[in-house]
Formats: sequence, C-alpha cells, structure tokens
Amino acid sequence: MMVETGSVRLQGIGASEGIAIASVSIQTKDELTVPQRKIEDVEAENKRLDKAIAESHADLQAIHTEASKRLGPEEAKIFEGHMALLQDPSLRKKVVQLIERERVNVEYALEQHFDIIITKFENMKNEYMRERAADVRDVKERLLKKMLGIAETSFLQQAQKAPCILVAHDLTPADTSSLTAGSTAGFATEIGGKTSHTAIIARSLDIPSVVGVTGLTKVVNPGDMIIVDGIDGMVIVRPTEEETIEYERRREQFLADKAAFHALIHEPSITKDGRKIEIAANIGSPAEAEGALGVGAEGIGLFRTEFLYMNRSSLPDEEEQFKAYREAAERMSPKPVIIRTLDIGGDKSLPYLPMDPEMNPFLGHRAIRLCLDRQDLFRPQIRAIMRASAYGSVHMMFPMIASVTELREAKALVEEEKAKLQAEGIQFAAHIPIGIMVEIPSSALIADQLAKEADFFSIGTNDLIQYTLACDRMNEKISHLYQPFHPAVLRLIQMTADAAHRANKWVGVCGEMAGDAQAIPLLVGLGIDELSMSASSVLKARHLVRGMDYAKLREIAQQALGLDTQEEVLRLLEKSQDADNN
Amino acid sequence: MMVETGSVRLQGIGASEGIAIASVSIQTKDELTVPQRKIEDVEAENKRLDKAIAESHADLQAIHTEASKRLGPEEAKIFEGHMALLQDPSLRKKVVQLIERERVNVEYALEQHFDIIITKFENMKNEYMRERAADVRDVKERLLKKMLGIAETSFLQQAQKAPCILVAHDLTPADTSSLTAGSTAGFATEIGGKTSHTAIIARSLDIPSVVGVTGLTKVVNPGDMIIVDGIDGMVIVRPTEEETIEYERRREQFLADKAAFHALIHEPSITKDGRKIEIAANIGSPAEAEGALGVGAEGIGLFRTEFLYMNRSSLPDEEEQFKAYREAAERMSPKPVIIRTLDIGGDKSLPYLPMDPEMNPFLGHRAIRLCLDRQDLFRPQIRAIMRASAYGSVHMMFPMIASVTELREAKALVEEEKAKLQAEGIQFAAHIPIGIMVEIPSSALIADQLAKEADFFSIGTNDLIQYTLACDRMNEKISHLYQPFHPAVLRLIQMTADAAHRANKWVGVCGEMAGDAQAIPLLVGLGIDELSMSASSVLKARHLVRGMDYAKLREIAQQALGLDTQEEVLRLLEKSQDADNN
Repeated sequence: MMVETGSVRLQGIGASEGIAIASVSIQTKDELTVPQRKIEDVEAENKRLDKAIAESHADLQAIHTEASKRLGPEEAKIFEGHMALLQDPSLRKKVVQLIERERVNVEYALEQHFDIIITKFENMKNEYMRERAADVRDVKERLLKKMLGIAETSFLQQAQKAPCILVAHDLTPADTSSLTAGSTAGFATEIGGKTSHTAIIARSLDIPSVVGVTGLTKVVNPGDMIIVDGIDGMVIVRPTEEETIEYERRREQFLADKAAFHALIHEPSITKDGRKIEIAANIGSPAEAEGALGVGAEGIGLFRTEFLYMNRSSLPDEEEQFKAYREAAERMSPKPVIIRTLDIGGDKSLPYLPMDPEMNPFLGHRAIRLCLDRQDLFRPQIRAIMRASAYGSVHMMFPMIASVTELREAKALVEEEKAKLQAEGIQFAAHIPIGIMVEIPSSALIADQLAKEADFFSIGTNDLIQYTLACDRMNEKISHLYQPFHPAVLRLIQMTADAAHRANKWVGVCGEMAGDAQAIPLLVGLGIDELSMSASSVLKARHLVRGMDYAKLREIAQQALGLDTQEEVLRLLEKSQDADNN
Repeated sequence: MMVETGSVRLQGIGASEGIAIASVSIQTKDELTVPQRKIEDVEAENKRLDKAIAESHADLQAIHTEASKRLGPEEAKIFEGHMALLQDPSLRKKVVQLIERERVNVEYALEQHFDIIITKFENMKNEYMRERAADVRDVKERLLKKMLGIAETSFLQQAQKAPCILVAHDLTPADTSSLTAGSTAGFATEIGGKTSHTAIIARSLDIPSVVGVTGLTKVVNPGDMIIVDGIDGMVIVRPTEEETIEYERRREQFLADKAAFHALIHEPSITKDGRKIEIAANIGSPAEAEGALGVGAEGIGLFRTEFLYMNRSSLPDEEEQFKAYREAAERMSPKPVIIRTLDIGGDKSLPYLPMDPEMNPFLGHRAIRLCLDRQDLFRPQIRAIMRASAYGSVHMMFPMIASVTELREAKALVEEEKAKLQAEGIQFAAHIPIGIMVEIPSSALIADQLAKEADFFSIGTNDLIQYTLACDRMNEKISHLYQPFHPAVLRLIQMTADAAHRANKWVGVCGEMAGDAQAIPLLVGLGIDELSMSASSVLKARHLVRGMDYAKLREIAQQALGLDTQEEVLRLLEKSQDADNN
C-alpha cells in the first residue's frame, strides 16, 4: 500500500461543533468472518444463541448504567433500544427457525436474519429510520463477537491514552459513549448523519466531530496530523502549516465566542434600540428541557411530540402522553412550552398505524390532516395536552394548517374535550393559547383570516420553503433550488408577520432559518417576535440580537422584499453586515 | 342467478359528454382459458407464434385503415401503437425463450410473458402510463384468440343492429372505434379512465359514455333500460319514470345548448360591457389543432410537447420536433400557438432518459429544472421552436419557473441558439414572445419581478393549487383539501394578473379552472385576459363570456378575495349567479 502524503481536504457533515487539531488513531475494523457449517444438534445451537443473547444483554446493561451516569438518562436510552432489540422474541424465533430448516450453525443463521433487517432499514425513506440500521448492525456484531469469542475493541482503550482524533469507518453508539472529552480531541467517521446516535452522543459529550466523510480511512495514516472542523463539517488530513495556523485561530475564536455566549445565559434578548425578541428552543422529548434551560432559552417554541409515537409497537395512551407533557411544562414553568400535535404521514409509517404508501408524501395525508381523520388518535393527545396545562404555561399548536376550515375543526375538538374534562372534574388551564404552524403557502397568504382565530403563529420555514418553491429539500438534484432567501419566501414571512401584528398576535419562526446567523437579522427586520431553534444555537442568537439595530434592520428587510433573486438578497445582507463591521 | 330489479345509480367517470337513454346490450366477456401443455417440438410452437403475429398484424392494419377514415389519422395512431407492440423483437425473443426453457405451448408462454408486462404497467404511478396496460391486454387477447381459433366478437355487429347502449367490463380501442354514433346510443364500462384510449375514441366519435363504473355488469340485465350521463359520469340502470323524464329533459337541454354554442364558432368572446377575453385551446399534438379550429378557438394557449417524447425508444431529434411545431403553427396561422417546452420528471420516466426515482416527484427534478440541467435535450427543442416561428405566430413558454434566475438562464439559451441559427442562415421570427407558466407559488408571489422579463404569463392552476395547499391532487385521501376556490389560490391569481397588467403584459390560465363554468366568471373578474382549455369546452366558455357583466364580476372577485374559506367563495358565486338568473 502506498503511503499518502500531502494535505487533503474532505467535506463531511458536522456532527458536533468545535475544532480539534491532533494526531490520528485509526480504528481498523476487523471484518467479522462468519463460518457456515452444517449442524446436526439443533438444540446445541439454540443454547449457544440464548447464551450469547444473555451475555450481550448483561454487557449492554453495564454500558447503559455507565452511560446514564456520564451522558444522562435520555442519551442512555439508546442502549435500552439495543437491549429491546436483543430481547425481541421474534428475533429468537426467526433465527431458531432458520437453524432448524437449513441445519446451519447459529452464527450463520443470525447473520442471514440480521442482514435482511438491516437492508430493510437502509432502504427506508425517512432519514431517522434509515440511521437505525446502524443500531441493528451494532447488536448483530455484538452477538457475533460473543459467539466467535472475539474480545471487544481494544482500540478505544488504546486511543484514550493520549488526546488524539479517532478515525473510523463507523463508531457504534457504545464506542462513542465510552469516549471522554479529556482524552479524545475529536473524531471523524466515514458514514453516519446528523441524527445518527453517534452524532447525538458526540454533541452531548461536546466532542468536535464530523461524520459522513467518504473515503476518509483510505487517505489517512496512523499518526498523521488531522483537523476536524465540526462547525463546517470539514476534515483536513496532514494540514499545511498555513492551514494549521488558520484553524488554530478559528479554534480560539470558537472557544472565545463560546465563553462570551455563555455569559449571556441570564441576559435578555434585546436589540440595541430596545426591541425584545424571544429566543426559545426546539425539543423532541421532555428531558431535553434541561438542555434548553441550561442555555437560557426563554421557553420551548416547538415541542415535537413524535418521539412518543416512534420506536414502539402500540399507540401511547393519554396517561403516558400527559406525563411527558406535564414533565416538560413543570421543568420549564413559568416559561412557555408550545406543544405541537402529532406531525407524521406517509413517509413515517408506524407499525401500529399502517399507512398506504403515497406518491408524494410531502403533499399527502399527514399531520393535522391525518389527526382530523383519526380522532381516536387526536382526542387523547388533545386531552393530554389540556391536562398538562394545569402544570405550567402550555400552548397548543397545530401543524400543516392550510385553511380556516381545518383550524375551526381542530378547535372544535379541543372545545369538546375541554367540556368533557370539565364534566369529569379534571383540572386544566382556563385559557390555553392555541396557535398554528404557518408552513403551507396558503396559510401565509390568508394569515389575515387565520389571525382572527389563532392566538399565535409559528412559521415552519423548512416546509414553507419546500412548498413555495415546489422543491423537496431532501432531493439532492435540486438542492440549489431550495432557497430560504428567495424573495417569495420573504414576502410570505412578511405577510404572516404583518397579519399577526394587525390582529395583536405574535409570530415566531421555528424552522432552521430561526437558528441561522445569516437569516436572524432579516427575520428580526421582518418583524418576527420569537425565534425557536436547537438549544445549541440559543446563545449565539442572543448575542446577535443584542448587537442589532432594529430600526436599521427594518429598512434592510424592506429593501430585500423588493429584490428579484436570492443572490441579490444575500448580497444585500453581506453588504449591510460589512458596513456594520467597518 | 337472481335477476336484479329496481333503479340503481352508479357513479363513474364521464368519458364523453352527452346523455343517452336506451336499452342495454351486454358484452359478456368470454374469459379466455389458456391450456398448458408440455411440448416436444419447439420449432412448431415458434411457427405458430409467428403465424399469429403476422395474422394479428394484418387485422390491425385493416382496423387502422378503417379508423383513419372514420376517426382521423391522429386517433388511428392507437393501432400503430398496437402494431409496434406486436412487432417488438424482444416480445418474440422472450416468448421463444420461455417455450424452449419450460417446454410449454406457445399460448401458455405468451400469457405468462404478457401478464408480467401488464402488471408492470398497472403499477406505474403515472395515470397515462397505467392506462397503457389496457393496450397491452388488447394485443395479448388478439394474439391468444388467433392461436385458440376464437372468432372476433360478434357482439358489436349484433349491437349495431338497433341503437342501444353497450355495457361491458371493458371495451378495447378496436371495439370502440368500430362503433358508430348512429347505431350506438352510448356505452358504459367497468374499467378505464378519462385518458384511456377508449375514452379518447368515444370523444372523437361523440358517443355519450361513462367509464370506471365499478360493478356495473353485475346489476344490469340484457334489455334493461339504462341512462348514460357522460356529463356527470352517472349511469342509471332501470330508471324510474321520473328519472327518465328528468334525463330526457337534460338531454334536450344538452342538445339545445350544443346547438346554441355551435352558432358561436365565428363570434368574438366579449362580455356585454365590451371586455375581450381570448378563448384558446390546449392541445397535445399538431393534429389536434383541427379540432381547436373546428370549435373556433382563438389560438392554442398550451401546446404540450410531451407527446413527441413518449411511446418511443429514443429522443426525438430537432428535425422531427420542428416538423411537428411547424405543422401546428401553419394550421393555426395567423392565430397564436403557445408551445410549452418539455414538462417531464421523476414520475414519467422514459426508456431513453432514465431518471432516479424520487421520494416526492411533484417537488422534484422536472420540467425546466431538468431541461436546464440537460441542455442536450433542451437546445434542440429551443431550435425546433425557433425554426417553426417562421411559419406562424409561435410563442415559447417555460414550465415550472420558480425564480427569476431560471427564467434568465432559459432566455440566455434561447439567445445563444438564435445567434447560431442566424449564423447558419436559418429563418426564424425576429420577435418570438417568451412567457412562463405560473404554477409554483413563488412565481405568483414575485410576478412583479418576473413580469419585467417575461412577455406573458399563463397560470397553471392544477399545479399552483397543489403547491399552494401542499396537496397532491392524485391522492384520494386528501381530495377534499384540493380547493381551486381557496382564497389563497385566488389571491395568487390576482397578484399575477395585477403584476402582469402593471407591466403591460397579458395573463392567461391554462389549468382545469380555465374550462370550468363555475370558475370562469371569477377568473374574468380577477382580470385574466386569456383562457385556454380543452377544445370541447371552448364554445361553452364563449357562451358564458358573452353573457357576462365584467364590471360586476370585478366587484364579485374583490369580495371573494376577502372571504375566509372556499365554501364562502362558492356561496358567493352561487348567490351572484342566482341573482343573475332572477
């Protein structure tokens, strides 16, 4: 093998922010070779299977306990998932059947069965589900290693001796969770995405990391210097001196900014000329409320409730939902928590809620459309949210509202459930604000009509941009057409904000634009009252807002509305920022 | 079998307008029983195959000649398609392989092979392609009957003795084309859609017909009276006396209207208070220009060019396209012909243009997006359109424009090709108007910017409604959410019309709304200058326009823009129409 030399830059996906510069430790993955044998004694094979399952379960239990301590109970849930997978009775049944039918050894049967499941996951449309393939692969390898008598990776223990950057084809969640920020400067892997469990754990450990760096292990040699830039998702192998100096400067800037942002945790988000912007966090489970409070979020602008419905075999009942919503409300109280009702559809099918495949799931039977048709699903959620409203400042928000009719129908169901709760003597807040996501062009276009019946708006820019430009943002072939700064998108935001204000209602943004440093000045200038984003962006956004001149941003926003292309809008924003810096 | 009695109403799909009331003739379909035999003499079977193909081809040739005379060359093309299918070398090869490998008789091998192809077509996403399954089935049965020595249906000859209504599970295009309006009052079938070949032929023969009437043959007895209402897509079996009287009245009204409309062929489309509306036709091939002229269309508002690319194995070259565009331009001259550049994408894959399947093809890489990326495809079409412009009043129109950038890119290509044509000494019109489809919300929202660079707009309401409401109109589960009269849609139409007029440009509508009697007054009131629709609606639309009071419609449209739901808009329209009628 030729030894590569010279600096190489590779683009990946930033999984956890920060910059690391250190020497490399490579995980050379031992390919597991699984033997195939004809067997006679079926019972003996079954026993070996049960033994491997039991031992692997014990290992996972220990990892779970350790991860709970180091990462917190929420992150440790990943390993509960692995244990559940391991103990799934249908797994054992299928493998045993295979052994009996084919008279093959257990390792071989196990690999056959798991590979089918892995392929299934890998071919799912939903990114989140696709990345679950990694979890299944992790469990498979754990079991096979037990059976083949291969010890767990010594790689990590070795790696942790000195602070270095780990490079691997992939890291399992178990690998990642055993890392410590002190001894691991950063890591980079060839596969994985932003929502892979490995990425999630990296963020909670605050280790700079980049995933999805195709071909990385081919160009890197053990001991090479490497830069991992988790901000821009860039990896530089064998950096030049200039590159090293540049990235050391960037690292210092990043750390200085981080410290400066940290000082703003208890400060208000207010422009220099006194306009208050509420900076809130988006969360996906009640446990994440802690992280939001930790960065000084002024509320939860979007509590996604899908987590309650995923990775399980039956619908969550009212009581279970109530507990989750109550927990979030109590943790955040007296700050507001905006709970969005279920937003699933044709591209995220659940085992207990079979849905017909749709030709265009993004234009399909999803979110409020599904909920209005499936009241057996919707009413318990409404009741659970109402009940939680007695324990904090709970707001209810409907996704995918396209017409006044839908909002009226949904509100009528809320009124019916309120009456029932009252009759049952169950407590709830007398006046719970009810708002809508503005994420379909029609709702922005008739925001004046909707503002008469909604208490607040939250603009879901991700979907709004998709529909306004007829452009699926997951479709790589047209990614250049997904344009957040297209004047048409800005005009819809303006219409929504103006209509809300004329009706004395407030309007927020909870899509990716809300946390985007380039978009925030424009959104503030368009009159947005609240920005809800991932917790990791809250302090940076507050810092930005505190440096703003609202009057000037209003002028810039008005200018932007009159421009003809996204390119022109971006040029205007850059120009006005340069003027600020000079 | 029990004989059904009593009146039964069944909803289907109106395939050809008009009302027929007559007794039934049922086509009891003989299920072809295909024997399976082990054979020794492979050569003998192959010879039987070749004989059947040759004889079927001769039959189709005769049908084609007859159909050309009776229906015109365009409609007869269906049978050219059948002949092409029959002579496809891969068909023969596959069947011969099957005979050799499995040692089965030719009938059996043939059925096996065709059923695979039929299933493939039936599972296609695109409605048009799905309905091609019927063509394949037709060819299969033709071949099998030849081999099994079954004579062609005597059913039709018998049916034509007296004017009656044919009822069948399905009619083949060959069956349908042998009908005559004189001896066949109408027909109704259990399967088929609006774009099936049978429906197309029925329209050109002007025989009232309804297709897609599920369960029809089960409730009808030979000799029963039956009403076929091709306007509303309704079939009434054994109508009551009241029903018969009602439908006789409707039939008279329909025929009277038709005669009245016919008198308007050479009249202008002008409101009572003098506003001129241009009523144009949508066509899908140059031959259809005749039909458009026959009903007095004032131009071609939308010439779809996809027909040139479908049902073939390689890209059409510039010359072939030029001939087709020139033919349309010459036939219509001096009336305008608006040629829309290619509008295909992920849901309509062509054999010579493989496309990756997309998760949301309606939000995908299609139309102008594909053309800008595939200039090898786009430039010859631009050249062909430019060259045709020397032979009539040709306009060029780009579909799916979402930004000013795309329009500029497309126009730059036109300029480049113009320069080349000039250098080559090839003739073209000096000033060919270039317009865009407004069918994506963003283009309506920035119509003011686009109007600076486009010579005209044509609003594609079908797609505009889909995107504005995030609602796939092919998805049955959410069909109630596809709302042409949603105030948001009306506001986008108004924005587009106002922006066009401020820039002294004209604006048309070429979606289904343009031909809808309920929508036309509203579109006129919103300031639309041109309506382009299927030729069959042209005269009715002209009749409507000539009865209109434009000043009053402007007021009504302004009111509609301020309403909150589609229901309210429809109520307003009904109220104002009632006021007119009283």
